[in-house]
Amino acid sequence: MILVRKVKKIRKVIKDIKDKGNTVGFVPTMGALHEGHLSLVRGAGRKCDVVVVSIFVNPTQFGPKEDFSKYPRQLRKDIQKLKSASVDILFAPDAAEMYPQGYSTYVNEEELSKEMCGLHREGHFRGVATVVTKLFNIIQPDVAIFGQKDYQQALIVKRITRDLNMPVAVEIAKTVREADGLAMSSRNAYLSEEERKKALGIYQALKRKKIVKKIDGVELEYFMAMDKDLLKPVKKIKKGTLLAIAARVGKTRLIDNIIV
Amino acid sequence: MILVRKVKKIRKVIKDIKDKGNTVGFVPTMGALHEGHLSLVRGAGRKCDVVVVSIFVNPTQFGPKEDFSKYPRQLRKDIQKLKSASVDILFAPDAAEMYPQGYSTYVNEEELSKEMCGLHREGHFRGVATVVTKLFNIIQPDVAIFGQKDYQQALIVKRITRDLNMPVAVEIAKTVREADGLAMSSRNAYLSEEERKKALGIYQALKRKKIVKKIDGVELEYFMAMDKDLLKPVKKIKKGTLLAIAARVGKTRLIDNIIV
Repeated sequence: MILVRKVKKIRKVIKDIKDKGNTVGFVPTMGALHEGHLSLVRGAGRKCDVVVVSIFVNPTQFGPKEDFSKYPRQLRKDIQKLKSASVDILFAPDAAEMYPQGYSTYVNEEELSKEMCGLHREGHFRGVATVVTKLFNIIQPDVAIFGQKDYQQALIVKRITRDLNMPVAVEIAKTVREADGLAMSSRNAYLSEEERKKALGIYQALKRKKIVKKIDGVELEYFMAMDKDLLKPVKKIKKGTLLAIAARVGKTRLIDNIIV
Repeated sequence: MILVRKVKKIRKVIKDIKDKGNTVGFVPTMGALHEGHLSLVRGAGRKCDVVVVSIFVNPTQFGPKEDFSKYPRQLRKDIQKLKSASVDILFAPDAAEMYPQGYSTYVNEEELSKEMCGLHREGHFRGVATVVTKLFNIIQPDVAIFGQKDYQQALIVKRITRDLNMPVAVEIAKTVREADGLAMSSRNAYLSEEERKKALGIYQALKRKKIVKKIDGVELEYFMAMDKDLLKPVKKIKKGTLLAIAARVGKTRLIDNIIV
């Protein structure tokens, strides 16, 4: 695996790969990799000749009161995991490389971003849409894979990719869970042993396929039934309905969802 | 010259061109072509193997009270001019091809768009930035050329191209003028004979290199001295200062600028 830090360099690397007729599969991440990420990586490997992973804790998708500074960073561990998963290229730029002085351009998705996390994390999806657009333009992948755990994000990425005519096939891969059902997340590392037990209530509530106002031991931000394509609230839960939760367990914000 | 209406088709055409090792020069326009456009086309032809021109009257860059519906459309004439200028490919999609149902993604440049036309045409540069991003992703040009007459637009296109990491070299070509100095513009066609004479006052005022509050016969929207890179107002006019005017002559809005 080669580690690339600069946009100019990765462009050359990608050009060489494409000139040889190889396809590129891409998994953008913020690092602190877990089995969920690695399943996306394996998916990319099945579909494409070369797998590129990016690790970039993107400042523009964190609100001023969010966990940007304490978000787990563990590049050495991540590199070991990516090597074991046969990743070809790791792109890990720093913030100045991605947002140079005088940076002033943002991508806004204005419909799918309205509800759910869009309501509760102002500017979050603007940051996501912007960095994904940049990464797609830099890596120029044939296929990019996102996890269903961040369902709204994945749908927004699909939408901006279509709307801005980026020639990338965006795929959504199913959520990987711990043995007891907790959705894998880099933020699970924040949880104490006791919080870890309480967090399980989120998935258990989803599995009951019924919206409730309270879940024991967690502070609900939202628990919604949505049309899975339009991300608008629906009154009746039926096959294909998205059930989505965001909740705090202690200070840790977790999200999860299922499609009924 | 071939005329292409669909994104899917033009992608194939461009891929064939690039597979043969040819470079692509691109001139995006809204049609109603004049000598200014044709000079951009010739510039693209000098720099690249293949020249692509787009004609698309982009609805998202017109305000609700602006001239979208009456903007001059003269495709047959335009085709003749482009053929004479040895253009290889004309891309002329309709609005539904560019903004399909459920379209919801916009590109915003947040600094250079603040002053000048950005103040007076709300949403204009959002529409420009969005359509240019789309066209760059569709055409994937090596070089794209914009006219200096729309200086703020050209600078914003440069900025979004850098910021979003689009692999396109954006160039600004100098304004082409009528024999008497009036900047060529598709909107000049709106002018009556009398208005045409008054409109000349705009360039004459610029040439005096001195900001004034009134120009005879035209209604000034702004007349500003700006830093040409930052597009912030400056107090002192010196070498390299941008002097820019927007004004109405009758109902027609015209812009022009010079760099001292």
